[in-house]
Amino acid sequence: MNRYEALTLVEGLLPEKRYKHTLGVVETAVALAKRYGANEEYAEMAAILHDMAKYHNRDEMKQLIQSEGMDPRLLLFHHELWHAPVGAHLATVLAGIHEREILDAIRYHTTGRANMTLVEKIIYVADYIEPGRKFSGVERVRELAHEDLEKALCRAVAQSIVFLIEKKQRIFPDTLECYNDLMLQKEKRKYE
Amino acid sequence: MNRYEALTLVEGLLPEKRYKHTLGVVETAVALAKRYGANEEYAEMAAILHDMAKYHNRDEMKQLIQSEGMDPRLLLFHHELWHAPVGAHLATVLAGIHEREILDAIRYHTTGRANMTLVEKIIYVADYIEPGRKFSGVERVRELAHEDLEKALCRAVAQSIVFLIEKKQRIFPDTLECYNDLMLQKEKRKYE
Repeated sequence: MNRYEALTLVEGLLPEKRYKHTLGVVETAVALAKRYGANEEYAEMAAILHDMAKYHNRDEMKQLIQSEGMDPRLLLFHHELWHAPVGAHLATVLAGIHEREILDAIRYHTTGRANMTLVEKIIYVADYIEPGRKFSGVERVRELAHEDLEKALCRAVAQSIVFLIEKKQRIFPDTLECYNDLMLQKEKRKYE
Repeated sequence: MNRYEALTLVEGLLPEKRYKHTLGVVETAVALAKRYGANEEYAEMAAILHDMAKYHNRDEMKQLIQSEGMDPRLLLFHHELWHAPVGAHLATVLAGIHEREILDAIRYHTTGRANMTLVEKIIYVADYIEPGRKFSGVERVRELAHEDLEKALCRAVAQSIVFLIEKKQRIFPDTLECYNDLMLQKEKRKYE
């Protein structure tokens, strides 16, 4: 499936506002891929498809998590987390995507994880800073994204955890592992 | 070992300032045990001994974590976390303590964990709010501790995580599990 077919597919799956958000993520992800030397086509396709399961039927998502052998802990957490791994599954089934890097970027775009690939980092950050995002703290991550993707990601993940704590929401273990991994890499860089 | 012998033991192991902190934790823990109907003797003994390994030799702590089969992930995290599980070990070896509840309250007083017992909660909160503590946010936890131990614990754990994030320090998985468990219990209480 090429970019136009993929855009048409997600346009049919998402309400207008979410489709507009997707276009913002695409624009941002392609710019970050150019800036940091990532595979631009992978970044673009992951961005187009990242939220494709956002409005998927909740019961069907639950069934897919079980039948497709996704992380069973997802079912113990907020359903808001489900659309990312289910999206990776639908990207294969509905859009014929098989490239591991594209699928993982979709799969981990909400929680993050330890040892993220460059494309995963780009999609996570692009989703956080796309032009339609207006929350407190976004501007600082936007600035950092021009200078240092790693720093932008650290900041975005840290702010996401604090945001969840302020809302008294639980935090998925992958997100903590993502944060811990980023802090460990940062410590290591200090001693290089 | 009775309370006087235990106090004499830890007085010999700790510098004056840390011993004074310990006395603050003892006073607070006993008050909380009375308030919430916990075993006062267990709370008192756990409070007396909770920091007994705080100034233990770092290499010896590392060896004990390995030889005594403690959580091996501890060695990948800040040595500040080691004195709690090592303290539980020394409480048996040096103070002859065998009661599981006392030992677990010492073992988890820094990280917390999911499904904490009443005595564990009391030691965690007492360590956080004892009269010598002066950091930002402590007063609110002190107030909550009079009204609702669970709320005080939630607040203390949440503030601890945010504090670590602000210092860009990694967070031990037990602490996340503690936080997630407390938030889940809170959600459940809402629907009771």
